[in-house]
Amino acid sequence: MTEVSRKDVLEAADRIVGEVKRTPLVKARIHKQDVWLKCECLQTGGSFKLRGATNRLLQLDDEERRRGVVAFSSGNHARGVAIAAQRLGIPATIVMPSDAPGVKVAGTRAEGAQIVFYDRRTEDRAAIAAELAAATGATVVPSFDDAMIIAGQGTAGLEIFDQLAGTGAPPPSRIVVPTGGGGLASGIALACPDAAIVCVEPEGWDDMRHSLELGEIVPVANDAPPTLCDALQTLRVSPITFGILTARGVTAMAVSEQEVADAVRFAWTEHQLVVEPGGAIALAALLAGKVEFGEGTVAVLSGGNIDPALHARMVGEDQAVDAR
Amino acid sequence: MTEVSRKDVLEAADRIVGEVKRTPLVKARIHKQDVWLKCECLQTGGSFKLRGATNRLLQLDDEERRRGVVAFSSGNHARGVAIAAQRLGIPATIVMPSDAPGVKVAGTRAEGAQIVFYDRRTEDRAAIAAELAAATGATVVPSFDDAMIIAGQGTAGLEIFDQLAGTGAPPPSRIVVPTGGGGLASGIALACPDAAIVCVEPEGWDDMRHSLELGEIVPVANDAPPTLCDALQTLRVSPITFGILTARGVTAMAVSEQEVADAVRFAWTEHQLVVEPGGAIALAALLAGKVEFGEGTVAVLSGGNIDPALHARMVGEDQAVDAR
Repeated sequence: MTEVSRKDVLEAADRIVGEVKRTPLVKARIHKQDVWLKCECLQTGGSFKLRGATNRLLQLDDEERRRGVVAFSSGNHARGVAIAAQRLGIPATIVMPSDAPGVKVAGTRAEGAQIVFYDRRTEDRAAIAAELAAATGATVVPSFDDAMIIAGQGTAGLEIFDQLAGTGAPPPSRIVVPTGGGGLASGIALACPDAAIVCVEPEGWDDMRHSLELGEIVPVANDAPPTLCDALQTLRVSPITFGILTARGVTAMAVSEQEVADAVRFAWTEHQLVVEPGGAIALAALLAGKVEFGEGTVAVLSGGNIDPALHARMVGEDQAVDAR
Repeated sequence: MTEVSRKDVLEAADRIVGEVKRTPLVKARIHKQDVWLKCECLQTGGSFKLRGATNRLLQLDDEERRRGVVAFSSGNHARGVAIAAQRLGIPATIVMPSDAPGVKVAGTRAEGAQIVFYDRRTEDRAAIAAELAAATGATVVPSFDDAMIIAGQGTAGLEIFDQLAGTGAPPPSRIVVPTGGGGLASGIALACPDAAIVCVEPEGWDDMRHSLELGEIVPVANDAPPTLCDALQTLRVSPITFGILTARGVTAMAVSEQEVADAVRFAWTEHQLVVEPGGAIALAALLAGKVEFGEGTVAVLSGGNIDPALHARMVGEDQAVDAR
């Protein structure tokens, strides 16, 4: 197993400073309790993914940069890699599912990346990416199964710690994290060793929960239901993320599509924040009363790349939600 | 003329602390220059208006609170007053134009305020509000023609100053402000005495510009064109705001509807921020190259209350903008 530690997260922070935004930590009131929202939906590229991508790409040597990078992603990692690559002058090819949200495809293309589409149900994106890499000598940049990607994502956790200290609030006691492959949760777990970490997944896509409960990696079932959380449709977590989260005794839980939709509306009506469904799922767990929380609780809003028309439908006036 | 000074802004900040958000100051890159965006679009209620409303309502005595408040507004001030009133248990009646954006009407109603509609073209909202106030003994809360409202809005300027100091950046040299009646610009001018203040208005609604240039208050012409900037359709500035801005030698300028639309898209595609047209107009002036700017320049994003469906149309993919 690849080793990755808190030291790697601290080094990542030094490496990527100035290349990623220090995103706002906003106080919210939910069920009469103060909690904090870490707004990675306001990160450049619309999600936390720029952190890991920047950390990884900055460590390529000149020859590797010349040969380019390949990534596979439903969109947020794609856009993060595309932005980091463009800034460093590295050619990027992104393998995306043909049903990826238009806003994510457009955002990735706008950064100058070449896009190769695949069918989420019948094709293996990892194999396509590996073939492309073999043909061109490009480096594959995994979305979560990589020590330096995880270390980069963990810089969000360091910011949470610093920002809470800056307000005079107690340190984070519990951090609730949207979870697909577990890269963000693992990075934050390394960054914040004294906080309880809670992973949240869509119902039917809660393979991290099953894996943590069974003590071994279990993939998503073949008959997993459709979900609006395109960013969290990861079929199998990785030994690195599973290992980190197991070692920390992390727990995980699932929330429903309706609970996610309520959270997307809450973020908009109460905080003027556009959050994509997968990015709102930690907040959804709080609003649904599925996680214990209090003053030291932080929910990460991990992404905001939602098609504006879908967002408009989801936050329609007749569906106002008030959790207070 | 009612006196209002920097001391009033400092007192307002002490009074409203904890009741309003310290909104993020986000770094942006425009035409290869670093500038700062003050995100009042992320303020509670979706605009800076909660600042002045809270400062004003906190100074009502028990008897005044019991009799309630009346405000007239196209929406943002309405929502700000409604939120502040609900928190203090004060009955609120809001006089709104019948063509106000649905999102603003819904937001105001959701806070428990009673809404009275009027026709923007044929009825005088100030007269309606005065009648309502006379009938009930309620206090009229003006949207900008009031010393304590202006002092409250100015607290955004104090935050800009503090936040820039916190990043180690130089103090603000130029603050560009969306302008309707001039309450926000006046408050920030008082808060930041060493920064140049630039007011920005929609073309045809640039009565502050005409007034500052002529040295006397000039109302908007009867044939002013339609504008998406509903928040800035103020027919006449007030002696207080005009006086403050004249004394500071403030300049003003107008931008086009297309330039505003480009700014709404830029805020979304580059910064994941939903900004209403009127709230994006200072940013529009920068993007259009109509204001000189550099490291110490701050553009205020003053509001984000836009109907989600309109926003979706404005940021459609085929209209991507890239100012870099």
